[in-house]
Amino acid sequence: MRTLGEMGEKEIVRRLLGEIKSSAPVGPGDDAAAVDMGDCYLVITTDLISSRAHMPSVMTDWQIGWMLAAVNYSDIAAMGARPIGIVASLALPKETAFSSLRSMMAGIQDCSESVGAEILGGDTKESPEITLAGTALGKVKKNRILLRKGAKPGDYLAVTGTLGLAAAGYYSLTKGLHCPSGVKALLEPKPRVKEGLALSSSGVVTSCMDISDGLASSVYQLSEMSGVSFSIEWDSIPVKKEVVQVADDCGMNPEELALYYGGDYQLLFTINPNGLPRLRSRMKSRMAVIGRAKESGRNTLKRGGKVSILENRGYEHFR
Amino acid sequence: MRTLGEMGEKEIVRRLLGEIKSSAPVGPGDDAAAVDMGDCYLVITTDLISSRAHMPSVMTDWQIGWMLAAVNYSDIAAMGARPIGIVASLALPKETAFSSLRSMMAGIQDCSESVGAEILGGDTKESPEITLAGTALGKVKKNRILLRKGAKPGDYLAVTGTLGLAAAGYYSLTKGLHCPSGVKALLEPKPRVKEGLALSSSGVVTSCMDISDGLASSVYQLSEMSGVSFSIEWDSIPVKKEVVQVADDCGMNPEELALYYGGDYQLLFTINPNGLPRLRSRMKSRMAVIGRAKESGRNTLKRGGKVSILENRGYEHFR
Repeated sequence: MRTLGEMGEKEIVRRLLGEIKSSAPVGPGDDAAAVDMGDCYLVITTDLISSRAHMPSVMTDWQIGWMLAAVNYSDIAAMGARPIGIVASLALPKETAFSSLRSMMAGIQDCSESVGAEILGGDTKESPEITLAGTALGKVKKNRILLRKGAKPGDYLAVTGTLGLAAAGYYSLTKGLHCPSGVKALLEPKPRVKEGLALSSSGVVTSCMDISDGLASSVYQLSEMSGVSFSIEWDSIPVKKEVVQVADDCGMNPEELALYYGGDYQLLFTINPNGLPRLRSRMKSRMAVIGRAKESGRNTLKRGGKVSILENRGYEHFR
Repeated sequence: MRTLGEMGEKEIVRRLLGEIKSSAPVGPGDDAAAVDMGDCYLVITTDLISSRAHMPSVMTDWQIGWMLAAVNYSDIAAMGARPIGIVASLALPKETAFSSLRSMMAGIQDCSESVGAEILGGDTKESPEITLAGTALGKVKKNRILLRKGAKPGDYLAVTGTLGLAAAGYYSLTKGLHCPSGVKALLEPKPRVKEGLALSSSGVVTSCMDISDGLASSVYQLSEMSGVSFSIEWDSIPVKKEVVQVADDCGMNPEELALYYGGDYQLLFTINPNGLPRLRSRMKSRMAVIGRAKESGRNTLKRGGKVSILENRGYEHFR
């Protein structure tokens, strides 16, 4: 029998999804699940962070709390929902100072307030290792929910914000470079709740997810869930100059940071072509079209006139 | 600055509650929080189990999953709500066999089905230590929600089921005694969802909570939240003969197992005196009156004609 380490997160999830019975309108497998509450859907998501995988040693307790809330609200944002609140389960070593726990809670609370939500409850237990689990709730009108499936051939593919900044923060920390905006992006990601609500209310967004494990990996997931493939253009992907600088200083390609690292928690979404002008005038600089959906073929990346197959890799747990 | 180990779970929770801002109709501090959803409340609770505190080595993976779901649904039951479903966040070592994870999910699913609910979603991450966090949702009509506060002087105090069986299971395991019903009660607790719904719909139950850390500890919590005190009678507390037998074999008092250990996940609740006959005819053998609320004074235990102060102790994390 294989171990989780041999399988990797994606295969684990795929295998489990086949076995879970769910009658929910949106069950396990999307950014969040949806429960029918009459005139709206309640969306619910859970995400855990453990010290090994998610917490660089420079991270403050407040940032750990912020991160826990942010990754959860990012999933709520990806569904086009308005956050209600969060419950947090914290497994902490006995030796943890109470002031640390209080700072973590302050981080959760501050992130919640930043998206108009609040702490609903929690649980704290003893464990040799720090593990924090959050579950966030949101609400969305039934006809306004955004899912990972729904993209049609011809739809435009777009992202909010810029990509690669969190990766630049990670490499600047590990290599001792100076990139404060990257470090802030890495340690205090902003859930794109306002953007998610704007995409949802526009009525022209056909699919959506958050980019947690890298753009390439998310493009493949959207492609698989929607049954289309995407051609994206490197020149259209918004990348800040700090990202190019850090990549350069590390002897890496900026693609590595912008496409294959993750941690930016931006939204990746598709747009009905007829609705593009309207959405553009609404979102302005908060979105960038990076490609288009096609009926079949592989997911491709065009760079400098040359089209190649987009690599299907990114950050994956248990690997 | 003090550590969590020096403070203990109760003080930690009390201190944190003072700092969390919440506008929820029922905020942090009860068995579950409540969110206004128009004609009903959505109740939400989170509970985590970690290998150190909650999993005797004999526990199977399926039982670990069942336990995670059961402790969460028990909180939903205590609010008088009908369970909707659960999301599970599982932090697991890389070396975990996939078959173990699958068995845990099966345990979560089977427990969910037993209370008419389902798995809504989940997350799996790598961690050196097993830590499982669950978040369960339920629904209850606004005027039917059961809280920890609400008991009035003169109300009867009652419990569902019998007490001490999980403790008997624990001591039989550690001392090598034979008590299969105790071991089953310890490792596969049944959330009292049907009982919670019956108490809620009766309209005569004035407060309610689940007994997770022992009867004595729960009596103190209900007393504090409702602003009343309780006198309970040992002879009225339902205790199975296996419990008395195990206590005897271990050279302990049965009180130790029934009052101060926990793990039974029964409901503790108070009843408006006028409603007692009606509730009794409805619940029949599923409830037992064990005491009465009074306006002031200490929480007391009457045994063999002698009244003494009920000790305020039970299972507490971080201690």
